Amino acid sequence: MKDLFKSFESVRNSATVLAVSPDSERQQALRRIADSLNENKDRIFAENQRDLENAKASGIPSAILHRLEFSDEKLRSVSKGLCELALLADPIGKTREKRELDPGFILEKRTFPIGVIGMIFEARPDALVQIAGLALRSGNGIILKGGKEAALTNRILVETIKKATSDCSFGDEWILGIESHEDVSCLLKAEGSVDLLIPRGSNAFVRYVMDNTRIPVIGHADGICTTYIDESADFAKGVKIRAEKSCLALMPHATEATEKDFHTEFLSLECAVRTVSSVKEAVSHIQSHGSHHTDAILTQSREAADYFTANVDSADVFVNCSTRFADGFRFGLGAEVGISTSKLHARGPVGLDGLMTTKWILTGNGETVAMYSGPEGRPFHHKELM
Amino acid sequence: MKDLFKSFESVRNSATVLAVSPDSERQQALRRIADSLNENKDRIFAENQRDLENAKASGIPSAILHRLEFSDEKLRSVSKGLCELALLADPIGKTREKRELDPGFILEKRTFPIGVIGMIFEARPDALVQIAGLALRSGNGIILKGGKEAALTNRILVETIKKATSDCSFGDEWILGIESHEDVSCLLKAEGSVDLLIPRGSNAFVRYVMDNTRIPVIGHADGICTTYIDESADFAKGVKIRAEKSCLALMPHATEATEKDFHTEFLSLECAVRTVSSVKEAVSHIQSHGSHHTDAILTQSREAADYFTANVDSADVFVNCSTRFADGFRFGLGAEVGISTSKLHARGPVGLDGLMTTKWILTGNGETVAMYSGPEGRPFHHKELM
Repeated sequence: MKDLFKSFESVRNSATVLAVSPDSERQQALRRIADSLNENKDRIFAENQRDLENAKASGIPSAILHRLEFSDEKLRSVSKGLCELALLADPIGKTREKRELDPGFILEKRTFPIGVIGMIFEARPDALVQIAGLALRSGNGIILKGGKEAALTNRILVETIKKATSDCSFGDEWILGIESHEDVSCLLKAEGSVDLLIPRGSNAFVRYVMDNTRIPVIGHADGICTTYIDESADFAKGVKIRAEKSCLALMPHATEATEKDFHTEFLSLECAVRTVSSVKEAVSHIQSHGSHHTDAILTQSREAADYFTANVDSADVFVNCSTRFADGFRFGLGAEVGISTSKLHARGPVGLDGLMTTKWILTGNGETVAMYSGPEGRPFHHKELM
Repeated sequence: MKDLFKSFESVRNSATVLAVSPDSERQQALRRIADSLNENKDRIFAENQRDLENAKASGIPSAILHRLEFSDEKLRSVSKGLCELALLADPIGKTREKRELDPGFILEKRTFPIGVIGMIFEARPDALVQIAGLALRSGNGIILKGGKEAALTNRILVETIKKATSDCSFGDEWILGIESHEDVSCLLKAEGSVDLLIPRGSNAFVRYVMDNTRIPVIGHADGICTTYIDESADFAKGVKIRAEKSCLALMPHATEATEKDFHTEFLSLECAVRTVSSVKEAVSHIQSHGSHHTDAILTQSREAADYFTANVDSADVFVNCSTRFADGFRFGLGAEVGISTSKLHARGPVGLDGLMTTKWILTGNGETVAMYSGPEGRPFHHKELM
């Protein structure tokens, strides 16, 4: 356990250098990682094959096997993703506010990396590469714990990524893979070494993480999404509705739902149709039954849409489109590390911006507070510069 | 305790209406509070006099008595503050990002109030008025626990503020004063009812709050601020330095420090001078000894300043000015509810912006994810609209 805490400190030390590394070096590192994954693909595929065989032998469902597979197509997709990340604007050092307090006395709020992120995610090796890429682009150190079914694939992916950056100013310790339950316990206790945890997975697991650490956590435990169909909704707009038999009479354009549909997000759509009779009731249903994740209204009434977006207290509030658009890539954030239902820091899909903090930089010429105090003190002029 | 939880829920219900109330109503409410405080000033001053007498009788130090006093001057100052808050731009519904995903398919990130804030602060009745004003302006419900020495003054101030807003659409339950230690214990357990806690006061108290609640907390426990004086610093720039005798030889412009100076922030200034010999060493001293609050460099070297601002991982990093400028009013934020040393959500002085969360509002015309999926799917064009 002590050794692992030491490794966490090594991640921080490397991240401290990564945070101030030039944009060009981080861009080049991302491209090198993409190249390196391609150069080592035979070894990676072989390890992934062993993971797949172990998973099959232990009777894992085929849906999970499909996620676990690191195919040539997934390799191409993550490589493309890394190169696209390199092309995004540098998220470090962006000025978010700029104000002159007095002539020549300039205040700026600028973005900086948070530090060290701990990420716990499901059995998808391609997610490991995406997350490592987001961390590197945003100048953060990353500690990764992937699904145990993907252990061998994850190990060789981390090894390949480390090798690809070993010549960088920040070295190869900005990324660390951890594996066991004990490692995760250690991670949850690493306040001071780790600045932010992002758990993904089952509701129960995310809630367990939130309840068992003093490190700030972003993510979402529940994902109940509701769509309210207003009386003025235009059913002809593409939107396909599947409902229980009992609801069909109310919805001339709906088709009968199959059992399978109720395991998809259509279920919520159906529930909302069944239980509410006005936009106010819809909002109050969502406030008491929802999970503050993503909720939508289908309506042609501007008034109903405005009421809904103002009053539904969720990370994402959509008008006349599917709740499935709640996704960092679809939002144009490049990619996402997760979706947050917290009201603080980052809310909704979390991309590069959610991995940044800010610093206030105040640059003066020897000003003291005394110069601005008392009846003879200078006033601040607080002139906005952006 | 159950009754108090019910009161917290009443705050939330009122805050829900406050959050969607028009700007003009919140502006008028702030002005009414200012008027009402002036109309009731004799009663307020009388209660304050009783608090002062009780405090004197229990031998409270005169510095605290001075903070406790709610004088005519302080009344004028908080009334002016409320009217200034009313003039600030409405923080609710501001668009922070706007992007077209596809023609006519618009994503916006807009600001909304966080919900219910719990604020625990020192024995300064004027702070109560400022904080209530910030909460109202930002559309948040507020639960206030002030210093016990100011209990009578706080009680009549909350009563006056409540009366001034009783005719508003959101009623008078958006503000709640609590008093006892038991009330505070109840507040710390009110996750679900309270969205954010902002404790101010002693290091030990702030740390106690952070360690004993599952509600997100912003604030700072420690406030060690360091100023590094680079070899190129221009000592003639107004900046007065007081140092220990042993340092005077190194600093021709410094004057000898008195014992009293070491109880002020000059102490840190002196410490930094004494112990480091390069900007790199200064940064590493600050990283290991500082509290990530506010640190400054005095230098004429652009290179040293850039190195310092990039590498010091603190909420506020200043160049050639006093660390005492770390203040929401001086920063031009209108006022502050506190200073945060957390890296998440709000960092540094926290004004109206720190009391806001965001929602993603996506408005379409019947789009489904299927339309954008697979080899035949439409691409997103992700056009920035601001």
